Amino acid sequence: MPLIQVRVIKDVFSKEQKRQIIGKLTDAMVSIEGESMRGVTWCVIEEVESGDWGIGGNALTAADAQALARGKAA
Amino acid sequence: MPLIQVRVIKDVFSKEQKRQIIGKLTDAMVSIEGESMRGVTWCVIEEVESGDWGIGGNALTAADAQALARGKAA
Amino acid sequence: MPLIQVRVIKDVFSKEQKRQIIGKLTDAMVSIEGESMRGVTWCVIEEVESGDWGIGGNALTAADAQALARGKAA
Amino acid sequence: MPLIQVRVIKDVFSKEQKRQIIGKLTDAMVSIEGESMRGVTWCVIEEVESGDWGIGGNALTAADAQALARGKAA
Amino acid sequence: MPLIQVRVIKDVFSKEQKRQIIGKLTDAMVSIEGESMRGVTWCVIEEVESGDWGIGGNALTAADAQALARGKAA
Amino acid sequence: MPLIQVRVIKDVFSKEQKRQIIGKLTDAMVSIEGESMRGVTWCVIEEVESGDWGIGGNALTAADAQALARGKAA
Repeated sequence: MPLIQVRVIKDVFSKEQKRQIIGKLTDAMVSIEGESMRGVTWCVIEEVESGDWGIGGNALTAADAQALARGKAA
Repeated sequence: MPLIQVRVIKDVFSKEQKRQIIGKLTDAMVSIEGESMRGVTWCVIEEVESGDWGIGGNALTAADAQALARGKAA
Repeated sequence: MPLIQVRVIKDVFSKEQKRQIIGKLTDAMVSIEGESMRGVTWCVIEEVESGDWGIGGNALTAADAQALARGKAA
Repeated sequence: MPLIQVRVIKDVFSKEQKRQIIGKLTDAMVSIEGESMRGVTWCVIEEVESGDWGIGGNALTAADAQALARGKAA
Repeated sequence: MPLIQVRVIKDVFSKEQKRQIIGKLTDAMVSIEGESMRGVTWCVIEEVESGDWGIGGNALTAADAQALARGKAA
Repeated sequence: MPLIQVRVIKDVFSKEQKRQIIGKLTDAMVSIEGESMRGVTWCVIEEVESGDWGIGGNALTAADAQALARGKAA
């Protein structure tokens, strides 16, 4: 039953990081709900275009998000 | 009022199949709610990248989904 | 894989009608994707409060939606 | 806290119009909730492919939506 | 076509404020897309339970959100 | 930026388990994206009514989900 949807800006996470997102968030969920729920635990990543994510009205690009991830203010 | 959102993996369904999804799911909904609701029944298809859909923590590709559709385990 | 989400206003559809929505929309989807996908076809109904659905800026209540369903303008 | 998600058909709105959507919808929300909520008001635009949006069972293309925007029936 | 979904914590906004959210966000959208799109501009408010919204891993209650709205840190 | 949405059936998870879902899924996400993204990592839980979640066309109740969690077939 549980459905985990993760929305991110396109080109911020690599293929490998997205695989980790699916694996680790599912494991986190299963650690709470119990292993017998694993088969019905779905995790879907949905990407939006760079610039299509606003915080406080300011559009955030993939570059902004990556700068933020490196520890700098966007 | 009713809003039907259908999430699928990109490149699993053809343009023609997606047109069928919109038509048939809307018809199914209208058969329950009544024909006068048709004009306000929306059906939106949203596609996620191949590999961005996890079941039990395992990423599913478009090829996996197509194999599953042909009746083989993913 | 396919995930069908149906958003409706609360108290417009009965328990029995919601069961029909799940059954008929899943059947419609399976008729396109093939029977082997049935087990991974999910259909989730999400209800919003009466008055929390706007069309053209006008809030729609459960009573408005039911009037519409009976064939009268909202 | 408030999360505003705007779903549109791809290629109907320009980069500049999408920036306006983020700015103006956030401002509208902040005018109701108060300026101190601005920093936690997010607005995300999600685009679906032309043809993947059905109204009453009929698929709407980007061209249909643009014709509608110019004041002609789709 | 445009679909605006607004997610908020339950009991933070009054009935009247939610009516304003629907009216003002629709008007903001129509000011960009053109008046002829008003009839197909939907705005849906979806409420989640107090405590079911996490920022940085910390659950936010309706009381926290209201304190924030009054200009105090949550 | 990242937005994690978790959909579950109402009354399957306790208040305390929902707090754990927010904490653990956020931690899992932060372990991939980096600690500097924590403040803009949101996790929202959305609950649907018992019976409003269909798998393969069969409605799942809260009791079914709890039986499944205890390791019995739904």
